[in-house]
Amino acid sequence: MDTVVVMRSTATNTDVGGVVERISELGLTPNISRGEFRTLIGAAGGKSPAIIQQLEQLQGVDRVIAVTQPYKLASREFHEADTILDIKGIRVGGPHVNIIAGPCAIEGREMLFEIGGLVKEAGASILRGGAFKPRSSPYSYQGMGKEGLELLKEAGEKLEMPTITEVTDPRDVGIVAEYADIFQIGARNMQNFNLLLEVGKSHKPVFIKRGLAASITEWLMSAEYVLSQGNHRVILCERGMRTFNEETRFTLDVSAVPVVQERSHLPVFVDPSHAAGKRDLVPALALAAIGAGAAGLIIEVHSCPDKAMCDGPQAVLPARFAKLMDQVKRVAEIVDHRVTRWGDAPAQRRRVENGGWMS
Amino acid sequence: MDTVVVMRSTATNTDVGGVVERISELGLTPNISRGEFRTLIGAAGGKSPAIIQQLEQLQGVDRVIAVTQPYKLASREFHEADTILDIKGIRVGGPHVNIIAGPCAIEGREMLFEIGGLVKEAGASILRGGAFKPRSSPYSYQGMGKEGLELLKEAGEKLEMPTITEVTDPRDVGIVAEYADIFQIGARNMQNFNLLLEVGKSHKPVFIKRGLAASITEWLMSAEYVLSQGNHRVILCERGMRTFNEETRFTLDVSAVPVVQERSHLPVFVDPSHAAGKRDLVPALALAAIGAGAAGLIIEVHSCPDKAMCDGPQAVLPARFAKLMDQVKRVAEIVDHRVTRWGDAPAQRRRVENGGWMS
Amino acid sequence: MDTVVVMRSTATNTDVGGVVERISELGLTPNISRGEFRTLIGAAGGKSPAIIQQLEQLQGVDRVIAVTQPYKLASREFHEADTILDIKGIRVGGPHVNIIAGPCAIEGREMLFEIGGLVKEAGASILRGGAFKPRSSPYSYQGMGKEGLELLKEAGEKLEMPTITEVTDPRDVGIVAEYADIFQIGARNMQNFNLLLEVGKSHKPVFIKRGLAASITEWLMSAEYVLSQGNHRVILCERGMRTFNEETRFTLDVSAVPVVQERSHLPVFVDPSHAAGKRDLVPALALAAIGAGAAGLIIEVHSCPDKAMCDGPQAVLPARFAKLMDQVKRVAEIVDHRVTRWGDAPAQRRRVENGGWMS
Amino acid sequence: MDTVVVMRSTATNTDVGGVVERISELGLTPNISRGEFRTLIGAAGGKSPAIIQQLEQLQGVDRVIAVTQPYKLASREFHEADTILDIKGIRVGGPHVNIIAGPCAIEGREMLFEIGGLVKEAGASILRGGAFKPRSSPYSYQGMGKEGLELLKEAGEKLEMPTITEVTDPRDVGIVAEYADIFQIGARNMQNFNLLLEVGKSHKPVFIKRGLAASITEWLMSAEYVLSQGNHRVILCERGMRTFNEETRFTLDVSAVPVVQERSHLPVFVDPSHAAGKRDLVPALALAAIGAGAAGLIIEVHSCPDKAMCDGPQAVLPARFAKLMDQVKRVAEIVDHRVTRWGDAPAQRRRVENGGWMS
Repeated sequence: MDTVVVMRSTATNTDVGGVVERISELGLTPNISRGEFRTLIGAAGGKSPAIIQQLEQLQGVDRVIAVTQPYKLASREFHEADTILDIKGIRVGGPHVNIIAGPCAIEGREMLFEIGGLVKEAGASILRGGAFKPRSSPYSYQGMGKEGLELLKEAGEKLEMPTITEVTDPRDVGIVAEYADIFQIGARNMQNFNLLLEVGKSHKPVFIKRGLAASITEWLMSAEYVLSQGNHRVILCERGMRTFNEETRFTLDVSAVPVVQERSHLPVFVDPSHAAGKRDLVPALALAAIGAGAAGLIIEVHSCPDKAMCDGPQAVLPARFAKLMDQVKRVAEIVDHRVTRWGDAPAQRRRVENGGWMS
Repeated sequence: MDTVVVMRSTATNTDVGGVVERISELGLTPNISRGEFRTLIGAAGGKSPAIIQQLEQLQGVDRVIAVTQPYKLASREFHEADTILDIKGIRVGGPHVNIIAGPCAIEGREMLFEIGGLVKEAGASILRGGAFKPRSSPYSYQGMGKEGLELLKEAGEKLEMPTITEVTDPRDVGIVAEYADIFQIGARNMQNFNLLLEVGKSHKPVFIKRGLAASITEWLMSAEYVLSQGNHRVILCERGMRTFNEETRFTLDVSAVPVVQERSHLPVFVDPSHAAGKRDLVPALALAAIGAGAAGLIIEVHSCPDKAMCDGPQAVLPARFAKLMDQVKRVAEIVDHRVTRWGDAPAQRRRVENGGWMS
Repeated sequence: MDTVVVMRSTATNTDVGGVVERISELGLTPNISRGEFRTLIGAAGGKSPAIIQQLEQLQGVDRVIAVTQPYKLASREFHEADTILDIKGIRVGGPHVNIIAGPCAIEGREMLFEIGGLVKEAGASILRGGAFKPRSSPYSYQGMGKEGLELLKEAGEKLEMPTITEVTDPRDVGIVAEYADIFQIGARNMQNFNLLLEVGKSHKPVFIKRGLAASITEWLMSAEYVLSQGNHRVILCERGMRTFNEETRFTLDVSAVPVVQERSHLPVFVDPSHAAGKRDLVPALALAAIGAGAAGLIIEVHSCPDKAMCDGPQAVLPARFAKLMDQVKRVAEIVDHRVTRWGDAPAQRRRVENGGWMS
Repeated sequence: MDTVVVMRSTATNTDVGGVVERISELGLTPNISRGEFRTLIGAAGGKSPAIIQQLEQLQGVDRVIAVTQPYKLASREFHEADTILDIKGIRVGGPHVNIIAGPCAIEGREMLFEIGGLVKEAGASILRGGAFKPRSSPYSYQGMGKEGLELLKEAGEKLEMPTITEVTDPRDVGIVAEYADIFQIGARNMQNFNLLLEVGKSHKPVFIKRGLAASITEWLMSAEYVLSQGNHRVILCERGMRTFNEETRFTLDVSAVPVVQERSHLPVFVDPSHAAGKRDLVPALALAAIGAGAAGLIIEVHSCPDKAMCDGPQAVLPARFAKLMDQVKRVAEIVDHRVTRWGDAPAQRRRVENGGWMS
C-alpha cells in the first residue's frame, strides 16, 4: 500500500527530515520530490491503512494519500484473470452467469420443494433459503434454524442443486458447513470480522453481500479477511445502498458491477430483490444487472408471497420468474456471458448419463 | 392530494373537533374513523402540500400522511397511456428508444460536425451539444454561448437530427428556443422554478434531468411546473444521485426507470456519462438502463477527449459508441422496445424519398 | 404497532372484505373508514413489522402505514420518565452528564494509566479502552485481547472509574463481563443480533453505538433486542452517519439527540471523535452535542497520538481535553444539565471519607 | 491549484514524457519524482479544475490528485484573518454572533411588524422575510413579490434592523437590491451560477445557503463566483444535508462550522429551522450550532404558525425564541463569541444618542 505524503507549503527542512525518518522507522522506503511550492514524500510498502493515520499527524504534513488500494489478495493486480469457482461442478464467475433462487426463509418442506422445483425448471442453478434470519425486530420471525438447514440439504440433494444459506454467528459456522454448500454473509454482517475469519478458515465458498453503507474498498477488504485465512472461494454480491431515495427499499448501485470487475478478479452478483423491496421492480433491476455484466443474480421467489414469513412483497411469483429467466439468458449473450442451466455442470452431465447425482 | 391525519392516543374529542373544523375551513372534506387506540381523520381534496404543514400543527395531531401524490398532470392516474412525443417526426416515449449523443460542450464547427456525423452513423437520433455550460468553478470554460447555438442549429440541419442543448437562465429561453429543438434543464437547475415556468410557456420539448439529491416526487413536481404552464412535452432523465459512494462521479439510480414508469406517463431517459464520470463504465451503465426499460440514453461522445474543454474523461470514443449502439439495439428488443434510427422518422423517410429535410 | 391500510381508489368491496378478513386472521382489530375517494382500514395490535409486509400485498391495497413505532420497551410511551442508570454509584441519564474518555486501543499499562489519570483529573467519570478492535483491514492492529481487559480492570480499580470496552463476538461476552463494567456495541455491530441477545442476557449496562447508516428506528430496535432479554440498562450513542460529505470521517447527526429524547427514555451520548476523524474538530462537535442536550460524550484522548496503534488523528491531547471539559461543564449548565465528576458518586464519596473504593 | 499525477506501475518513459509535455503545454510547471514502484509528476499552477480531467486521460496515468483547493478568494490561505462585514453598522463575522429572525414568508404588514418587534425585543439583530418563495409545488403559495419587499423595507426602517430576503431569479436582483440589505441565495439556487454572477456585480452582502447535497468545496466555489465579481461581502449558511435520515427534514451538518472556519475566512451561519423541520427541535440545533462556533443563526419565528402560508411547523413561537436567545448568548460566551444586540451597532448607538436611524 504505497502512499504519498503531501507537505504543507510552510513545511521546513526539519519537518521533511522528520517525515522521512518516520517512514524509515515504519519499515517503508521514502522518496523525496521537491516541487516549486510543496514537497512530496513517497512511502513505498506496508500493508496496514493505519500507517496513513500515523504519518498524517507529523509536523508539517498537509495530507497523506493512498496511491494503491489497501487490499491485495482481492485485487486484480494480484490475480489478473477472473476467478472461476467450481461449486459441485457448476462454474461461477468469468463468462458464466448463475441464477440463485428460492424463498427468503425456509418455512417448511412442501413449500421449499415446490419453489425449488419451479426455480430449477425455470433455469436457476443454485437454491437459496434462509434458516437463520437476522431481523431488525426481536419480535419478528427468526427462522427455522437447524431444522431449516436439514430441509435445505434435502432439497438440494433431491433437486441436484448446490445450496446457499446465511450464517450470522461465528458459533454457527460449523453446523451451516455441514448442511449447505455456500455461506452467505448478509449485508449487516459484512463487517462482522470474527464471522469473516471463521468462514475464512472453512473451505466452502463465501458469498459476501455489500453492506448497506459500505464503500467498495471496505467490501473488498471484507473479502480480503476471508482470502487472508486461505479460503480463496469468495463471491461478491451488490444488494443496494442506503440513500435518501425512498422509492425503493435500497438504491441498487448497478455501477458496482463494472467497478468491482475492474478492481478485483472475484465474481460479482446482484440481488435485485432486496434492493427493490417490491416484486414489480425486480425484473427491471435484474435485467439491468445482467446488462451491466453481473456474474449472476440472487432472487427471492415465492408461490404464495402474501403468506410468506419474511419479505413477501419483494418475492417474485414463479411464472414471472420463468419469463425473466428467458430475458436474462438473452441479455447475457449480448454481453458475451452465458447462463448456466441445469445439465451444464459436468457432475450433472454425468448424472444425466448415469442416473446418479454426485458432487 | 388526499391526506390522513393521525391523532395522538391522548387526543380529546375537542382536539378531533378542531381538526375537522380546520379541514372544512381549508375547503377539504373530512372523514372520521375512530379506532381502538387512535382516531384517524381523512381529508380529501386540495392541491398544495402546504395543507399538510398546517394540519400537523393542530392540537392532538400526531402525524399527517399524504395518501396521494402532490403532482397531478405528471401522474399516471391523470394520463394512463404513455406519452409519446413527436419531435421533428421522431417518436420519443412508449416503445421507442432514442439515443441522444454528441460532445459535452460545443468547441468549434469542425469538431461538432465530425462527432455529429459519427454518432448519427452509429445510430443516434438526436444531437446534443452544450453552448451555455454551468460550471462549479468561475474559472472553468463556460461555453461558446450564442455562437455555439448557431453551430448546433447548422449541424442539426445538415445532419437532419433534432438538437438538444442546456438552458440555464430564464433570460436565455428565447434565444435557445430560436436555435435548438429541445431544452435541457440540468440537474443543478431542476428546482430553478423560474426557469421551469419560462420553458413551460414555450412549446418546445423540455428534457428535465433529475437533481443530484432530488426525490422522485420532487422531480415529478418539477415536471408539473412545466406541464402546469401548458407545455405537455416533457422528458425526464435520470443522471445519478450524490451518495457516499466515491467510485463513480454519481450513483446511477437505475430503479428510477421502473419507478417513474409506474408513477408517470412521461418518458424517462438515462445519462450514463455523468453518472459514471469515466468512459470505461459508460457501456455497462447504458446497457443496464436499457435493460431496465429506459426510453433512451444521452451519451457524451468525443473523438479526442483528452483535449475536450469539459468532462473529457467520461466521453466515449466513437468506435466504442458504435459497438455500444449495436448492443443497445439488441437489449431493447428483449424488453419489447425498439431503437429509433435515422430514417425511421416520417419526415426523414420523406427526405429519403424526395431528397429534402423538412420538419 | 398499529397500522393503516390505504386502499387504491379502484379497490372493490371484495378487496376491502379480503383485507378485513386477513387483519382478523392475524389477530388484529380492523376498523373501516370510507372516504370520498379511498377506503382506509385501521389494524390495531401486533408487534411484528412483518405484518405490514403481509398486508401490503393484498388485492386492492395501495400502501400500509405504520402509525405507531415497532419498538415498545425502548419507547417514551412505555416508560415516560428518563431512565437513569446507576453504574458503580455514578448516575447516567436524566440531568446527569458523564464524560467517557481514554485511548482508542489499550496499548500497554503505562500508557493506559497515564492517560486514565489525566482524563480523570480533567473531569471524565468513566474510562474507555479497546481490547478487541474491529478493523476494516485484516492486516491492521487487532487489539491486545484478554491482556488488554486485565489492564483495563486494573486501571479502573486504581483510578476508581467504571470502565467500558467493546465486545465484538458473542463468544467474548462472558470474558468481557468479567473485566469491564459496560459493554460497548460498536457501530458495525449495531445489527449483530446474536451479540445483542447475548449482552441482553447479562446484567451489565450496554452502550449501543448507532450504525453508520442506521435509522433512528433501527437503532431503537437494537436497544429493544437488549431490553427484550430483560437487561434494562441501555445507553445509546450517536457517532456519525455515512453521507456524501468528505470533510469529516462521518457526519455527526446532532439532531439525533433531541429526536431520541422525544421518542425514548434511554440516555443518549455522542462520540465526537469518530464523527470528526480529526482532533481539531472534536471540541466543536463535543460542545455542539452538549448544547443539543446529550447525556454525555465518549472521547478518545492520547498523550502521544502520532504513535497510537489506532485512530491517532482523532485523539485529543490531554491539555486540550482539560480545557474542553471546562467548557462542557459550563454549556451543560445552560441546558439544565450537570456534569458528573469524580467524587460525585456515593461510592466515591464513601471512598473519600473511608479511604476505600467499593462498588 | 497544484496537482500530482500518479503514473501506473506499468507506465513507460514515453508515457512519463507525454505527461510532462502536456503539463508544459497547459502552462503549468512539471516536476518528476521517480519512486520504487511508481513515478509521480507534480503540476504546479493553473486555476481550473478541468486540468485534472485532461491529465487523467493521458497514457499511463493512474490518477490525478488535487493538492490544493480549487477556490482562491474564499480560502483562508488567501485571506488569513476572519472577514468581518459591516452591515448598517452591525458587525458580522469574527467574534460577533448575529441572530437573523422573522417569518418564513411575508404575509402582511401587521404580522410582519408584530413578529419583527418581538424578535428584535428578544435579541435578533437582522430581520428576515420571504417575498419570492421557491416552492417545490407550482400550486403552493409563491410569496407576495414586490409588495412583500416594500413591507420588508418599511419594517426594517421602523425597527432599525437590516433586512434579508431571498432572490431566486437574476432578473430580480435589481429590485431586491432596492428594498433589502442582504441577498439570500437559497439552497436550491446555490449552483444557479447566473444568479451568483448577478449578485456578485452588486455591492450588497450575499448570504449563501449550502445546497442540500453540496460538498463544502462546491459551496466555497459558489462563494468564489460572487467574490470573483468583486463583491467581497459573502456570508455562508449551513442548513442541513439530504441524507437517508427521515427524522428531520434535513440532516444538520454541524461539523460544517469548524470545517469552513478552517478553510475559509468567511463567516458561517446555521439555519436550524430548515434542518429540523419541526419547531421542537430548533432550540437544540441552535445551541449546538453556537457551541460549534457559528457566527450566527437564521431562525423562523411566527406568532401563529398553524396559519402560516409556508413552513409553519418549523416556526418557533416568540416566547420560546426569547428563552432561546438567552441561552444562545450564554453559550456564545463560552466559545469566546459575543451576540450582537440592538444598540450594539455604532449607527444604532448614534440613533440612541441622537434620535435618528442612519445607515
